[in-house]
Amino acid sequence: MNRVTIHPTAEVSEKSEIGENTKIWHHSQVRENSKIGSNCILGKNVYIDINVIIGNNVKIQNNVSVYDGVIIEDGVQVGPHACFTNDKFPRAINPDGQLKGGSDWEIDKTIVKYGASIGAHSVIVCGTTIGKFALVGAGSVVTKNVPDHALVYGNPAKIQGYVCLCGHKLKPSQSKGSPGYCEICKKDLTNR
Amino acid sequence: MNRVTIHPTAEVSEKSEIGENTKIWHHSQVRENSKIGSNCILGKNVYIDINVIIGNNVKIQNNVSVYDGVIIEDGVQVGPHACFTNDKFPRAINPDGQLKGGSDWEIDKTIVKYGASIGAHSVIVCGTTIGKFALVGAGSVVTKNVPDHALVYGNPAKIQGYVCLCGHKLKPSQSKGSPGYCEICKKDLTNR
Amino acid sequence: MNRVTIHPTAEVSEKSEIGENTKIWHHSQVRENSKIGSNCILGKNVYIDINVIIGNNVKIQNNVSVYDGVIIEDGVQVGPHACFTNDKFPRAINPDGQLKGGSDWEIDKTIVKYGASIGAHSVIVCGTTIGKFALVGAGSVVTKNVPDHALVYGNPAKIQGYVCLCGHKLKPSQSKGSPGYCEICKKDLTNR
Repeated sequence: MNRVTIHPTAEVSEKSEIGENTKIWHHSQVRENSKIGSNCILGKNVYIDINVIIGNNVKIQNNVSVYDGVIIEDGVQVGPHACFTNDKFPRAINPDGQLKGGSDWEIDKTIVKYGASIGAHSVIVCGTTIGKFALVGAGSVVTKNVPDHALVYGNPAKIQGYVCLCGHKLKPSQSKGSPGYCEICKKDLTNR
Repeated sequence: MNRVTIHPTAEVSEKSEIGENTKIWHHSQVRENSKIGSNCILGKNVYIDINVIIGNNVKIQNNVSVYDGVIIEDGVQVGPHACFTNDKFPRAINPDGQLKGGSDWEIDKTIVKYGASIGAHSVIVCGTTIGKFALVGAGSVVTKNVPDHALVYGNPAKIQGYVCLCGHKLKPSQSKGSPGYCEICKKDLTNR
Repeated sequence: MNRVTIHPTAEVSEKSEIGENTKIWHHSQVRENSKIGSNCILGKNVYIDINVIIGNNVKIQNNVSVYDGVIIEDGVQVGPHACFTNDKFPRAINPDGQLKGGSDWEIDKTIVKYGASIGAHSVIVCGTTIGKFALVGAGSVVTKNVPDHALVYGNPAKIQGYVCLCGHKLKPSQSKGSPGYCEICKKDLTNR
């Protein structure tokens, strides 16, 4: 199957690139020069800004805004209402009182790595990297890099433990060098 | 009057059930097998997932997402931008790297009881019960059950006092057994 | 140029007043008796309630809700997903169990002053004033007044320093009476 599903109320730029089997739902908007992989799902009222890059098998839920400067790798889940940013010094006007123009903004990059999950209603301050299979809890304000497999939450988000590929919290491992044991997967995590 | 108002830009499934005098505003979506009572108001861009149950006299404001597994009883107010959840271990992919399918999710239930209010821009982690006439302050991250009449706020939300039916904070009561006195309603609260 | 741009999917009341060169994007809604100045940008799914007053050169990003009782002065930036409120005691029903009507709400006013910035995904509890060129960090819950040029963030938001017109944090100044020195603008801030 080589079909992209775009709901009639969604607006997808012809200058964007969308992979096969990707579904884009109600009132979502995908702007020019963005690239979305295959088998992705974009929920209701998702906004994909110019230049955004999204991998394969990515699920982005309702009301998520992804801005220019953000890269989302394969297998990432972005929970509902999550918000990315790209400007650390947001001002509508310059110090002289004139409205800022396109060249007045400096964009800070954000990367969400393979398999990571961003919890519902979180905000990711730009300039950060969310590690592989990291898990950002609901309602978090992420202001720093998140290591691979780390569980973070709070405002500001802090490391609260480590999680397995499956999302469950790891227990201390008996094996030397293993970051932890998953009681659900019944095994030690071998590579972080 | 036996009229349901549905704005032309809203999408309401024919397989949902909507009570009389309920109003559903711009760009809202109500999915199949959900049930909404009478005299409810759904604001702009509200999302009601499959299987959601909502009572009578419920007000749900702009940009609220209510997911499968959530029950909202009569007389509840859900403030703007509030977000429910239903998955404690959110992952887009299984540990083998394959995209998760419908049967790979386990849904945790959430109940919001009679007369409770969820503050603007809050997130309710699934598996919790919000008690009768409880009040969740704006911007809260609710991770635990909230007792009847409790005022909670913060990230994570903690009990900060108790409130009357009218929403005002209770003062200590002179009457034995009363949970508090309301200076606005001029009476002791008798049943929590 | 005396042109207002309104995207075909936006709904702007004929009883609102919109200044020249203002742009209103996808699925946004501007209600009756609101007033928006010139050179403003309203992003996707912005909601402007009745009676809201917005100045010139204001940028309001995706999914922002601005409610009756809010005044936004010139040059303000409101980041994506930010939410205003206008009711300190939100209840859907009165103590007698009847649905609240229009006259049962008391509106608390909120003012955002000239040049201020509201960070992404923040909520502003009503009854507060955000000072000139103040900067509210991403994910903040603002519950108190914010002084001019203050940087606040957190839940609840607290003062974390002071910022320049350009948005950068001020260093201590050598000049008597100056609130701080900006290393970017290479000058002392003279008037707060």
